[in-house]
This record gives sequence, structure tokens and C-alpha cells, in this order.
Amino acid sequence: MLIRVINPNTSAAMTAAIGAAAARCAAPGTVIDCVNPTTGPASIEGHHDDALAAVGVIEQVRAGEALGAAGHVIACFGDPGLNAAREVATAPVIGVAEAAMHMATFVATGFSVVTTLERTCIISEHLVHNYGFTRQCRAIRACEIAVLELEDPGSGAYERIEEECRHALREDRSGAIVLGCAGMADLRDRLQGALGVPVIEGVTAAVKLLEGMAALGLRTSKRGDYAAPLPKPYTGWMARFAPGAA
Amino acid sequence: MLIRVINPNTSAAMTAAIGAAAARCAAPGTVIDCVNPTTGPASIEGHHDDALAAVGVIEQVRAGEALGAAGHVIACFGDPGLNAAREVATAPVIGVAEAAMHMATFVATGFSVVTTLERTCIISEHLVHNYGFTRQCRAIRACEIAVLELEDPGSGAYERIEEECRHALREDRSGAIVLGCAGMADLRDRLQGALGVPVIEGVTAAVKLLEGMAALGLRTSKRGDYAAPLPKPYTGWMARFAPGAA
Amino acid sequence: MLIRVINPNTSAAMTAAIGAAAARCAAPGTVIDCVNPTTGPASIEGHHDDALAAVGVIEQVRAGEALGAAGHVIACFGDPGLNAAREVATAPVIGVAEAAMHMATFVATGFSVVTTLERTCIISEHLVHNYGFTRQCRAIRACEIAVLELEDPGSGAYERIEEECRHALREDRSGAIVLGCAGMADLRDRLQGALGVPVIEGVTAAVKLLEGMAALGLRTSKRGDYAAPLPKPYTGWMARFAPGAA
Amino acid sequence: MLIRVINPNTSAAMTAAIGAAAARCAAPGTVIDCVNPTTGPASIEGHHDDALAAVGVIEQVRAGEALGAAGHVIACFGDPGLNAAREVATAPVIGVAEAAMHMATFVATGFSVVTTLERTCIISEHLVHNYGFTRQCRAIRACEIAVLELEDPGSGAYERIEEECRHALREDRSGAIVLGCAGMADLRDRLQGALGVPVIEGVTAAVKLLEGMAALGLRTSKRGDYAAPLPKPYTGWMARFAPGAA
Amino acid sequence: MLIRVINPNTSAAMTAAIGAAAARCAAPGTVIDCVNPTTGPASIEGHHDDALAAVGVIEQVRAGEALGAAGHVIACFGDPGLNAAREVATAPVIGVAEAAMHMATFVATGFSVVTTLERTCIISEHLVHNYGFTRQCRAIRACEIAVLELEDPGSGAYERIEEECRHALREDRSGAIVLGCAGMADLRDRLQGALGVPVIEGVTAAVKLLEGMAALGLRTSKRGDYAAPLPKPYTGWMARFAPGAA
Amino acid sequence: MLIRVINPNTSAAMTAAIGAAAARCAAPGTVIDCVNPTTGPASIEGHHDDALAAVGVIEQVRAGEALGAAGHVIACFGDPGLNAAREVATAPVIGVAEAAMHMATFVATGFSVVTTLERTCIISEHLVHNYGFTRQCRAIRACEIAVLELEDPGSGAYERIEEECRHALREDRSGAIVLGCAGMADLRDRLQGALGVPVIEGVTAAVKLLEGMAALGLRTSKRGDYAAPLPKPYTGWMARFAPGAA
Repeated sequence: MLIRVINPNTSAAMTAAIGAAAARCAAPGTVIDCVNPTTGPASIEGHHDDALAAVGVIEQVRAGEALGAAGHVIACFGDPGLNAAREVATAPVIGVAEAAMHMATFVATGFSVVTTLERTCIISEHLVHNYGFTRQCRAIRACEIAVLELEDPGSGAYERIEEECRHALREDRSGAIVLGCAGMADLRDRLQGALGVPVIEGVTAAVKLLEGMAALGLRTSKRGDYAAPLPKPYTGWMARFAPGAA
Repeated sequence: MLIRVINPNTSAAMTAAIGAAAARCAAPGTVIDCVNPTTGPASIEGHHDDALAAVGVIEQVRAGEALGAAGHVIACFGDPGLNAAREVATAPVIGVAEAAMHMATFVATGFSVVTTLERTCIISEHLVHNYGFTRQCRAIRACEIAVLELEDPGSGAYERIEEECRHALREDRSGAIVLGCAGMADLRDRLQGALGVPVIEGVTAAVKLLEGMAALGLRTSKRGDYAAPLPKPYTGWMARFAPGAA
Repeated sequence: MLIRVINPNTSAAMTAAIGAAAARCAAPGTVIDCVNPTTGPASIEGHHDDALAAVGVIEQVRAGEALGAAGHVIACFGDPGLNAAREVATAPVIGVAEAAMHMATFVATGFSVVTTLERTCIISEHLVHNYGFTRQCRAIRACEIAVLELEDPGSGAYERIEEECRHALREDRSGAIVLGCAGMADLRDRLQGALGVPVIEGVTAAVKLLEGMAALGLRTSKRGDYAAPLPKPYTGWMARFAPGAA
Repeated sequence: MLIRVINPNTSAAMTAAIGAAAARCAAPGTVIDCVNPTTGPASIEGHHDDALAAVGVIEQVRAGEALGAAGHVIACFGDPGLNAAREVATAPVIGVAEAAMHMATFVATGFSVVTTLERTCIISEHLVHNYGFTRQCRAIRACEIAVLELEDPGSGAYERIEEECRHALREDRSGAIVLGCAGMADLRDRLQGALGVPVIEGVTAAVKLLEGMAALGLRTSKRGDYAAPLPKPYTGWMARFAPGAA
Repeated sequence: MLIRVINPNTSAAMTAAIGAAAARCAAPGTVIDCVNPTTGPASIEGHHDDALAAVGVIEQVRAGEALGAAGHVIACFGDPGLNAAREVATAPVIGVAEAAMHMATFVATGFSVVTTLERTCIISEHLVHNYGFTRQCRAIRACEIAVLELEDPGSGAYERIEEECRHALREDRSGAIVLGCAGMADLRDRLQGALGVPVIEGVTAAVKLLEGMAALGLRTSKRGDYAAPLPKPYTGWMARFAPGAA
Repeated sequence: MLIRVINPNTSAAMTAAIGAAAARCAAPGTVIDCVNPTTGPASIEGHHDDALAAVGVIEQVRAGEALGAAGHVIACFGDPGLNAAREVATAPVIGVAEAAMHMATFVATGFSVVTTLERTCIISEHLVHNYGFTRQCRAIRACEIAVLELEDPGSGAYERIEEECRHALREDRSGAIVLGCAGMADLRDRLQGALGVPVIEGVTAAVKLLEGMAALGLRTSKRGDYAAPLPKPYTGWMARFAPGAA
């Protein structure tokens, strides 16, 4: 069973790290194919990066569908392009913010999101509102770490994240931590060990959700809001995205 | 890995049917132990049944913890005793309403719940409100089938449920169906085949969620709201439930 | 006119104190019968205690109905078993959290709940959400006093509660205080005198609401969601709770 | 104990009817003084009537305070001037929409409001939203009866109201009816008898709430949002309303 | 094109200042007529002032309609009488709180309201809730400046407002400031210059909205909730307000 | 003053029609420059079209900024790319759904959206939820007209839209209509004339809002959530979008 994990940014190092985290948690029989778009931002730290990264997500979901993927993970905490991806996929598609937040509600009455830069908090806030978790999400906290710093062992990122998590547990009355960046996937185990509460990370959460959904035969509904895009011409560079194009 | 599936009512036939559905979807290596309480209502069709069934759920979760269960499923669509069960468990506990609703949001923008008696709708409505899915749940529909009729092949229950599902798809702008009773677990495949949209059933959804959470090392948070009950005396018949009692 | 005040925990001293507070506020002609269950937790400080206490509440409401009670008070701030109790009662049933919060909205635009242990706050939060008072309830504050400490004159409980109330008035922009435990019933007058704002306590509030409802002929609706439980067998110890059982 | 019932419109016949309904439900020892403003609209059927009626409400609350009233009822279903009245009162003030809706939540999980003209529904909708009862209020229904028709025995008003109540019970899944006009006070008993569900009427509900609050010593909070109006000049005809004016 | 700007209080100095601010922003061809009621409070700092000021607003909107005004501004941050005014007007009517909040959502994801006295915050909070901006309005902050102090150059009001705005930007994660009093209209430019973020003031915002609506031919809907008040007698001093009166 | 009106789809005929509607309502001194992207979908009728159209919107907003535009209109009812556009702009950016919905709240207590295909309703629903207008938007209705049919005089589109508007007024208790597609801009006057209620169309509404904001000196906040995108490399075809790229 093939699960495509799509890192929506174009940083190969982060793609590798995300893929490794996904592979570590995958069941026997699951093949993780971790990819990133051929074009787009090197990291996603705002609405502009997010909107443009959605193009690459769509590109990769289409490619994954052609390969017969059993599921797709959008491995950026803004879940860029999620609804569009669901239109082009028949396999299920899950965003990592979505996956992590849902999982967190199963182990605690309230969770705190700990993320990178303050300017990304609005995106998380928007997702929380849309997924319905305004009561369960007790705080969204930034560490003021740039996304690509997470890949730099000398950046002190782990220490700053752990410290922010401790603030969250003390001040937010939260019982669990949601890591607010796919780039934090390989910090989860260490953080959970250090903090003694569930630490939920979306890449691994999404992989396990997709494995479960595949076993149940649950795929994206093609009735109504996620029906395939209507065939029509797309002009210029995007002609390749035209629904129904050969 | 042991997953305890608790049918909160005391109908052995339903326990068997639920257990069979759970076992069919379980991964190799998962052992399903489907049980029901030693005391309580024969079916759950209102707040009174629900409140009293919670006692049996707690009893069975405690028993499952003693057996080292890796997870617990509360297999009644009212999720009776869910919060209390999480206080006594260190393994994760998932209710089937919760499991089904969360899963549904991954495959459709909106779902309809199709359940048994109209008088149970208020319980589903309350859960929807508390889980945060007031926007995603577009309708809660009753078929006026008693819970135990579901076990009777001559009751025409399947036909009535399929018909109500068709009403839901036509009238609610929903893309998926959530089955509102654990007793409907073995109807799912047939309904999904007939309807052509995702049909989500909570027992199987919960089993797969728990398998995923076990792989990720996610267990109930013991910090804050789900900490173990404080030790104290319980009088009378319930003395056996006293937290800290040997 | 008989009003049953049910202390859902099994502490006789607290039952006596609650009964005395209820009797002091009762109108001439109202007979207060304050009782506690024959089985269950000695105090209610979490979901587990709450779920198990609901059994005793149902037991006592049934007993009160048999005695022809004109109303029932559930005298624990978690309002355990409220919906179930309404199914078995034709007389009105009111929880003390419910009573106090409603009353508070008549005298102030915003109130703060001051309660016992932090771990009970989630229960209050859940009630606030369900009763519709998320805007009116400006804060839920714990004093870290165990419920049974309230009965101990040497515990300093009064002083800690008054101090927390003063924090609430200063920091929450609240105009009234809601006491978050039935065990605080006999502190109300002293607190209101000291603080100079309305202090609302649920046991007394519920008694007066029930007296008013009796005068108006308002009883629990038996149409729809609070209709009597459907007759069915209950097995084991709970057989006595079977609806329709003789 | 004096309770002032203020009919915010200037129709003496309606004032008499409201006063009679209030007096019938009052406890021994309660004196009902039912009044209407000296100036303002003959009936209240929209925002304009409502805004101007608030002046008379304030006038009468001030007069009642001077008489030492123990409580004030605003006997129009739009609760005109409620917040302003609470600023000028130290006794509690309750609006009849507020009273009826709160009471309804104690006897049913959902209620329907049955009111006069469709154009008044927006006012009820606004109150429902502000009081927090968007879930409990399942519908607001108009009978297209003008307020003053209610006083006309030949208008067929009773029959049309009963019919609309029956529609509500059938179609809204409601367990109780809230009457949406103070002019319906004397229809309550007949309707409750005919319909077999609780029918809640605000004038009588408010009187009983105020009697209860008086017994508990609960008065309008003078801290914060309902503090007395700041002294200042008012010009022209309204000079009489200047806070602090002799 | 005539735009009536109505200062709902009766302070001529504030009327002049508001009128000047409105005139400065008006397009060529717009005539600003800034007026205040003939009767009512000298300033509006609570519900009582607000309710009584609504009478003068209605008086002035009627007068403006008779003059053929193309739009009406209610120049007090509580938007007193807004719904009533829309019933009597066919031209559009806009409140300054409404205008400022809407405009703020176009330039920032979140704004803070900076207003006068803490006791007015509840009015803003109520408006935010009703206009739908609970997510966009991140805080409502008072400077403890009385409304009429704003007209006194020696009061230090500007400095205190600027300081509170700086607190808002630092602590609320807001991107824009909404000034919470029509009396602050002439401080906007200075504040925006000093703070470097959009500062939105409602009088000027409302004038520009009305100019735009006039160009588009958008007028108050006379169907449904804002239909003209029903003809009926008003007694006493308010007889002049009777709908349909000559 | 230059206002860029961006038709996010690539249909030149629709661009021309939108531009003409914008020009007709523009003030003297406003220059309307109506453009469409160089690449993207021919019409926008779902999430996939919407996500890919966002790229073209960003492209055109950047181009408009370089030309010194005083404001940007995103002329598609899904407001594609709105938040991203605000990051790259210092001039204000307004989406037509946003503009129309805000304007509608000034003239009616409730409005109905009348749009093209049912499958686009979910996008409108999402915007309503995010803009805060869940109470004011009483219904979203589809006419099952494809976007490009609107440009075809023989399609009968006008008649079907008018009919759906009449349904809305009868059944939704709405006082105004919001047209749910920029392609309906030139039908507004005819519809408003026929229906006798305000009909709000977003292209023209947005132009007037931007003219007003320009006069007030209101521009997109560059503090916080809409700060300029962080400089970073973009790979491949999108390198041209890299923030900070020359």
C-alpha cells in the first residue's frame, strides 16, 4: 500500500526528514513515498507561501493518484491545498494539522499548539476555527524559530520548543501538545519523553489515520463538495492542471 | 496487542455482532476482546439508559486496564462514560460516535448521522456540539428502529436505514453517512456499496484509530482533566469502584 | 409541598449542611427532604465520581417521585445525572450549577465561578458550554480546596474562597460570583456581605426556582427528549432501575 | 413585598390583563403593581416601538425604585430597556422573554417561541442569541396576529395560536412552548391543558423568579456594567431622566 | 447629496467636532449636516444614556428623511437606536461602531477597540457579538477617559489613548486599532501617524460607506425586518413619534 | 487613482464585463484597470479552480502594486488568494464576496446568497463562517448555472436567477440578495428593479469600498499577520514569486 507524503515546500532536507519520520511509524506493507513539488517556496511561513505551495500539493496529489496511492498526506501545518487536493483525489487526503488536532482530542480535553513563527499563528487559528476545535485548542504558541532552522542541529531549536511546551502546560491548562510544524516530526519522541504528556505530531498521525482508513475502505467522497473538478480549459503554464486534460 | 471493545448494553447477541465486526477489521497482531457489563440496560435508547450504562463501561475499562489493554472502545453511539473512562485508563479510550464523526470529516465536508429512535437524536446532537462538529454534521436522522430490532433479520431494518440514508444524501447536501448505532456495524459494507458514498461506522473506525495511536505511543494524558480519580471511599454496592481501592 | 434535595455524594455531614441551607430559604409550606444515595462516592471531584454519582441521583429521584415530590434538586455543581433524572421524573428537576448560572445572568452581565479543585473546572466548563453561557461566564476559578475540607471549620476554606472571589472581581470584569460547589451553601451570606456583589449559590437558587415552577404548574415535558425511559430489562444489580419494573 | 409589573406599551386594557395574570400567580405577601408608561406606543411590534417604549420602562422602573419595589418585570417579549433599567434599579429587573426562555430550559431540551407578527421575530432572534439559547430555541414562529388583537375575544387569536403551537410540536422536535407576547398571559393555562406540554409565559415566570430572588437577597449588581448611571445633564424634555437629578 | 451625521448626545462642542471630521473626509458634492437631538444626555457612557439617546437619534433620522437625506450616520460608538432608525429611514443608516469594525476587517486579521470608560466596554462587546466579529475583535480596552474630556485639550486624553493603543498592539496581536468613541474622530490621523498601523474611526468610515452606497443605489430594505413601523397611536409626549402621524 | 480589478479566471469576455461594471460605478478620478491572470482556469467552480486561481491573483496584485494601485479587487465570489494578496500589497485588497456580504448587513438584518452551481456553495459557506456572518446569511442558494453561461445571452440565466431570488425572499425571511458570482455584475440593476429589495453585487461594492478607504488613508496593515512575506527562495516556475526577488 502506497502512501504519498507530500512536503509542500521544496527543501529536500526537510522532505527527507519528514519521509524518515513517516517511514518509522508505517506498518509493514505500507510504502512511504515522500516527495516535494517541483516548484514553490523553500519554506511556508505565511499566507503567501501557503497559497503558492498549494499548487505543488495539487501537482503531487495528481501524480500520486496516477501511481495508485492509497492515501496522501499534506505535510505542512497549514494544510495547504487540502480541499482542492480532495477534489482531485479518490484516495483519502489528510493534512498534518488536521491529523494532529483530531488525535489530540482523543487523549486530552485541551491541547496547546506549539509552532514556529508568530506570523504563522493566524493560519493555525483559522484551521482550528474551521475544524471545529475552538474549545479544545487552548492556545497557539510561537517559538520564533524559522522553519528551516529546525533542520539545523546547532540552532537550539529543540530547547526553545521544549521550553515553550513547558510554558503551555503550566499556563494553558492543556493536557497535550500539538507540534505546529511538519519539520518537528523527529522531535516528538524526545519531547514526549521529557514532558510526560502526549505530544502529537501530524505527519505520523496522518500516516496512521490513512492506514486505518484504507483498511476500512474509506475514500474521499465523490458526491457533492469533493466531486472531481469540472472539465474546463486552463490557460498558460497551468494548462497541465486543467481538469479532464489528457 | 489487546483492544477491548465494550458494548455498554448487556445484550450478548449484540456484543457478539460488534465483536465480529471489530475482529474483521483488526490488523494482524491485534486481539479484539469484546465484552459487555455484568449489570445494566439491555439496550441504550435515552439518557437514563445512557447514564446507567456508564457504570458498566467504567467496570469494563478497569478490567481491561488490569489486563493490559492497549486501548478501549466504547461501542454505543452515545459514548457513555467516555470522560470517566479516560480518568481510569492510561491506555486510550475512544467512543464510537466520536470515532465515526472524526473519520467522516476526513472524507466529506458534511455528513448526516442516521440513527435508531428519534429520542436518541438529542444525545447525538449533544455530542456533535461538544466534539465541535456543528458545521460538519448537517443532519441527525432517525429511522424509528429500536436498537434490538437491528439484530432481527426479519425486521426490515436494513431497508429502512438505506432509505433514510438516501433521504439524507438528497436533502442534506451531505457527502457521507455516519451510522448512529454500534448495532449497525455489520450493515456498513452493504450500505456503502449501495449508496456509493463513504459510510462510516464507529466500532471499526475506533479500532483502527486505537491501532494507530498504539503505534504512535499516544495514551490518555494523565496531566490535568484526565488524571486518575482521587482516592476516596465509595459506599455500598459501588465500593468496588472506589479509586485507590485494592 | 415536598422538594427533594439530593446530595449526590454519600457524606452525611454535607447532606445535613445542604439540607439546612435549603430549609432556611424555603417558603412556608415547602417541606425540604434532603437525602443522599445509598451507594456512591464520598465526594465528587472529577468525571469518574460524577458518572458514578449519577446512579444515586437516579435512585433518589425515583424514590422522590414515589413520594409525590413537587420537585428535585441535584445538589452537586456538576449536575450529575440531570438529563436521566428528567426522564424518570414528571416533577421538575434542577441542577445547582444550572440554577446558579441562570440566576446570575439576571443580576450581572458577567459572572465568575469560584469552585474547589482545578480538576473540576472542566466539568463546569462543559456545563457552561451546554447551558449557553459562554459569554456570561467570564472565568472559572479553583481554590484548590477539596470538597470535604469545606465541612472542616479549621481548614481556612472560607478565607481562601473569599480571596479567590476578590481576584475574580478585580481581574474578570465580573459583577457577580457563582459558588461552584453545593458544599459552599452556608458561606453565601457571609461572602455576599463581605464582597458587596451578588453571590449566587445553587442549592438555594434551585429551591426557589422549583417553588416558582410549582406555583406555575410547570413540570418536566414528557414529550420528546425527556419522555419516560422505554421499558426494557436491566440485568444484574441494576435490575431495580429497569424502566417499567414493578 | 411590592413587585412592579411594567407593561411597556400604553394600552390600559393590556395592562389590566397582564396585572391580573401576575396577581393570580403571586404568592401571599406579594403585592403586584401593574403599570404602563405615561407616554409611548400603544403596542410594540418592531424595533421602533421597542426603542421608544424603553423610555417608559425606565420612567416606571425609577418610579418603582422610589416606591421601594422588590423587583421589576418588563412585560413585553422584546425586553425593551432591560439593561438600562438594571442601571437605574437596585432591585432585580427581569424581562418576560428572558424569564420564559430560562424557565423553558428547565423542562425541555428544546422549545419553540410562538409569537404575534413575523416582523417581531427578529427581536426574539436577537434575544435568543444574546441570552445564549441558540441551541435550546428550536424555532421562532409567528401567528400573524397583531398585539392588540389578543385583547379582542372575537379575533380567533386563541385558535390560531393553538394551531401554531401544534405545528411547532410536530415540526420542531420541541418539548415546550414559549409564548412570545405578554398579551398572551391569560391563554397559558388553556394552551397547556390543550397541548399536554409545558407552556411558559413570561409575566408569570418573571413574578415567580423575582419572588425567589427576593427571598435569597439577590439584587442587581452595582459593580461594573450595571453600576448606576453617571451623573450628568440631560437637556430638554428628558431632563427628568438625568442621573443624579433631584 | 446630503448626509446627516447625528451626534446622539446633546453636547454642541462634540457635534461641531464630529461635523468637522465628517466634512474633512466628504467627497465633493457631499453636504454634511451634523446635528444633535433636542433632548437627551450630554454624553453616552452606559446603557441608560444609550437607551435614552436612541429617542433623539430617531427624531433626527426622521427629520433627515424629511429633508431628503441620502444617508444617516449614528455618531456614537454604541450605535444607539440603529435598528429603529432603519425602520423609519429609506436611506441607509450606519452606526460608527459598525462602520469602523467592518472597515478594520479589510485591513487586518484582528483589531483592538480602544475606548473611553470601562463601563462602556460591555456595549462594545455586545455589538461585536451581534455584528459577528468575535474572532476579529481581539480586545476591547478602556482608557478611563470620560467622553467629554476628549473635548478638553488639557486633559491629556490623546497621550493616554496613544499609550493604550501601544499596549493593544503589543499584547493583543492586533494589526489595527478601532477608536471606540465618536469624540476621538479628530485624533485619528495623529494616532495613525504615530502608531504606523491602520487606525479606524467610525464617523469618517461611515461617511465614506454611505457615499459608496448612494452611488450604488443601495438603500435600507423595506421588506421584512426593517419595514416601516406599523401605524398606531403613541400617547403623551411621544405622540410625535407615532408612525403614520402627519 | 488606480483601482485594479482582478478577474481571477482567464475568460476575457468576463474580464471585460466585470471591468465595464466597475467603470460604470467608479467616481470621477478613479481609473479602473480590469485584468485577468496570464495562467489559470477559465472559470472558478470549485476548490481546485479556486486554489489555482489564487496564483494569478497574486501575480496581478504584485503587478498592480508596481503600478502604484490605490486598491485591488479580487473579482470572484470565492475571494481566492485574499490573505496572500494582502501580504504582498500595501494598498488595500478586497474580495467581492467579502464586499457584498458586508454591504448587505448595512441594509437588511438577513440576506440570501444566490450563486451559480451547488458545488460552489461550500466555498461561500466557508467564507460566511470566516467573515462572521453565520447569523446574517440566512441561505446560500444555487441556480445550477455554470459561470460561463452568464456571458451567454441565450442561456436564460437572468430568468433563472430572478426566480431563485424570489424563492429566497419568500422562504428565507431575507431582506436583501447578495449575488454570488462576479459574472452577475451587470444583472444587478435589473434584478434590484424587479425584486424591490437591495441586490448587492460585489465588484461594484468593492470599488466603492476601496474609494472610501483611499480617501481615509486606510491601507493594509503591515504589522503582524499581513506583514510582507519573508524573503526566501522559490524554486522552478514560481521563482518569480519569491518574496524579495528583484
